[in-house]
Amino acid sequence: MTEKFDIIVVGAGILGVASAYYLQKNNPNKSILLVDSQPDAGQANTAMSAAAIRNMFSSSTNQLLTDTSIDFFRHIQEDLDFDLTLHFCGYLWLLSERQFKEPSVQTWMQRMEANNIAYRVIEKSELQKLIPGLVTDFSGDEEAELMNLNNVDYALFGAECGVLDPSLLVQFYKDEFLKLTKVKPRFNLHVEQLLLEAQPGLGLPGEPLVWQNKLVTGIKTKQGEIHADKIVVAVGPWTNTLLDPVGIPSYVKAKKRQLFMVAASDHQPLEEILFAKGFSKTGFIPFTILPSGGVYLRGVPEEKSFWIGCADKVGRTYKYTMEEDDYNAERAYYEQSVYPVLSKYFPAFSNARPGNMWAGDYAYSVDAIPLVYEHSGVIVVTGASGSGIMKADALGRITDALYRGESEAELYGGRKMSSKALGLVNRDVEVESVLI
Amino acid sequence: MTEKFDIIVVGAGILGVASAYYLQKNNPNKSILLVDSQPDAGQANTAMSAAAIRNMFSSSTNQLLTDTSIDFFRHIQEDLDFDLTLHFCGYLWLLSERQFKEPSVQTWMQRMEANNIAYRVIEKSELQKLIPGLVTDFSGDEEAELMNLNNVDYALFGAECGVLDPSLLVQFYKDEFLKLTKVKPRFNLHVEQLLLEAQPGLGLPGEPLVWQNKLVTGIKTKQGEIHADKIVVAVGPWTNTLLDPVGIPSYVKAKKRQLFMVAASDHQPLEEILFAKGFSKTGFIPFTILPSGGVYLRGVPEEKSFWIGCADKVGRTYKYTMEEDDYNAERAYYEQSVYPVLSKYFPAFSNARPGNMWAGDYAYSVDAIPLVYEHSGVIVVTGASGSGIMKADALGRITDALYRGESEAELYGGRKMSSKALGLVNRDVEVESVLI
Repeated sequence: MTEKFDIIVVGAGILGVASAYYLQKNNPNKSILLVDSQPDAGQANTAMSAAAIRNMFSSSTNQLLTDTSIDFFRHIQEDLDFDLTLHFCGYLWLLSERQFKEPSVQTWMQRMEANNIAYRVIEKSELQKLIPGLVTDFSGDEEAELMNLNNVDYALFGAECGVLDPSLLVQFYKDEFLKLTKVKPRFNLHVEQLLLEAQPGLGLPGEPLVWQNKLVTGIKTKQGEIHADKIVVAVGPWTNTLLDPVGIPSYVKAKKRQLFMVAASDHQPLEEILFAKGFSKTGFIPFTILPSGGVYLRGVPEEKSFWIGCADKVGRTYKYTMEEDDYNAERAYYEQSVYPVLSKYFPAFSNARPGNMWAGDYAYSVDAIPLVYEHSGVIVVTGASGSGIMKADALGRITDALYRGESEAELYGGRKMSSKALGLVNRDVEVESVLI
Repeated sequence: MTEKFDIIVVGAGILGVASAYYLQKNNPNKSILLVDSQPDAGQANTAMSAAAIRNMFSSSTNQLLTDTSIDFFRHIQEDLDFDLTLHFCGYLWLLSERQFKEPSVQTWMQRMEANNIAYRVIEKSELQKLIPGLVTDFSGDEEAELMNLNNVDYALFGAECGVLDPSLLVQFYKDEFLKLTKVKPRFNLHVEQLLLEAQPGLGLPGEPLVWQNKLVTGIKTKQGEIHADKIVVAVGPWTNTLLDPVGIPSYVKAKKRQLFMVAASDHQPLEEILFAKGFSKTGFIPFTILPSGGVYLRGVPEEKSFWIGCADKVGRTYKYTMEEDDYNAERAYYEQSVYPVLSKYFPAFSNARPGNMWAGDYAYSVDAIPLVYEHSGVIVVTGASGSGIMKADALGRITDALYRGESEAELYGGRKMSSKALGLVNRDVEVESVLI
């Protein structure tokens, strides 16, 4: 006797729990089993996130996915009284004159205006008042020149952006799912492979054979096989590991990203930067991206600290799939690659060393737009390219729309997206150019 | 002392030698080193090909790439008197009524008409005269029903298609390249990795660091490092292995494909099929694709045999990179997956067993259109998705145009293609749906 459900959702990261919730909500009579290799939901890469949310993307697609998701997160916290520690501290991109005038940045701004994504340009003089501790001009600094450091001439500020606690967001979707489902999720359960079966099976050696119709009908685990009519695969940087063996195309890459916590308490100059008051009602600094090296910082007012990260590009390894070692942050990376840039723009960080650090993997797609598509009995949700949390609500709804065979998904607030727009081929998306 | 060239072309398969030739032809003063891990050019996956050529693709992009390449191959053989054993035996797609009416097939035919790709529809009655040994109707055959076998109601025939010997095509490009270059190619030389260097290097630990400009400046081999201003990476299913470690995006998948040689000599019914006279002046059967299971056959009149292959889809493993074992064809694959279909449509193959077999890998792109793009000092030529030989001339010219910074590549016959159309992002292509 093997078990059988209507749907199995593999992966209880943010995309898995959001998908499970919308699937159960809109298909109340279906039995849905949620499985994850970790002891609870949201404990793998979701937990490693910088956990910031923004609607300031260059592509209309990502703008729509995030704008509606963020509206829903606000609804969770403000209307449903479920605290996500969501703070609208904003996002702040620091740019040189040259960067500001680049066609890609101009296109980005135009698309935000066209799609009513709120942002404003801050001039250098205002910025210097808002963050007195920021160095904006490296003229005559030979070291800065060797480091390719751009001056700060402008900033783009988005007020509808901010930070939240992803474990609380996971908790929300999981709780709501649990209220609806009769099937207890299974944790600590590693899915070894997808089961691809001939339809119908003929009992021949080597099945499924090339000339047979084939469908993924379940999962194989150490506790045996579990079957379902549909398998949702929401496993981020492990996507290739599950899909490649059964020949379902995926085309995502895993890439390690690291975060370093630097305490601001007991160091007045850092506290002044952290609690920069002029940007928003939150009274702390926006998520700030430096104009060089991809270095960014996120304020964490609850713990009086910063999380420092880096949107590294060429030179850092792409991987086929996530490896255990990718959870280990590297002190040398902070010291050699992050700190030199950070301390140039913010001298208050001089000699500051991380008190804690962690790492995880992004799952990149070619165009940095998520993938949601159906293939051979599987619905794949992946490729969020490092911004899955802020798109989770929309992606969960799209997954459900695809399951129900709806041509359009209704996102929060009533806006719609074709449920096939995020397909692997025949994608209907603009390439995303604003990656962090 | 490390060696330094203007260009290194990594990979002397068909795409590598065609690229090397056009690069040297149009940049006569540049020193170009061609390297390959095999003892000579074209000995890896190029040699494993079914070696058929067609312009009958569904995408305008693949039509243009192949149509101009095939024209050039004809020019090589007819005008330059270099025998490629190129035979225009044609391509023959067998289709059921239902398949014929599918939107994808209708779009395919419309695009061929719009782009002047020659083809004609053959009705069943004519087909039965042309190939008396073909079974077209499985009514009442329960076994055929279990095998999902489609009847044959129509065929699409393309006369400007055929077969050639890829080793001769490789020889042509290699010879022409050797006439121009002063640098002896190096074979039996495995490229272990690309060298990514900081620009400028500062002698710091951990270089290249995140904030440094970076460029691929050479290759690492067992015989030491070799440097160049530009590296062309034309390594097909090994693309990820070279690009991922330096963080250059690739997004291709390797997949094993197999061929089985079945002798037609001394078996009159098979000889009759092989030498089906009515299709072309060549007097032998077109490259024929059965309507089920992806099974195809290619006549090899010189050796009085067929090569039998199978365009398998879901159920056959995608791989990160090619593995040695992928060169081994599997007899069980022929017996279980290919033979049952083949012998149903062509009973003359009953009890025929392969006398020889071989295998190699395809390098798939997401949309089954090749990739040619520049990134961090590298020009990548990959993703030909199993039809690299028939596109090789156009791809070599596009690679050279990209190197010279030309916005357009002039293909054989004067037709043009944007040299960025095949880029990894901002691609300007139609998705290819006619895969074999």
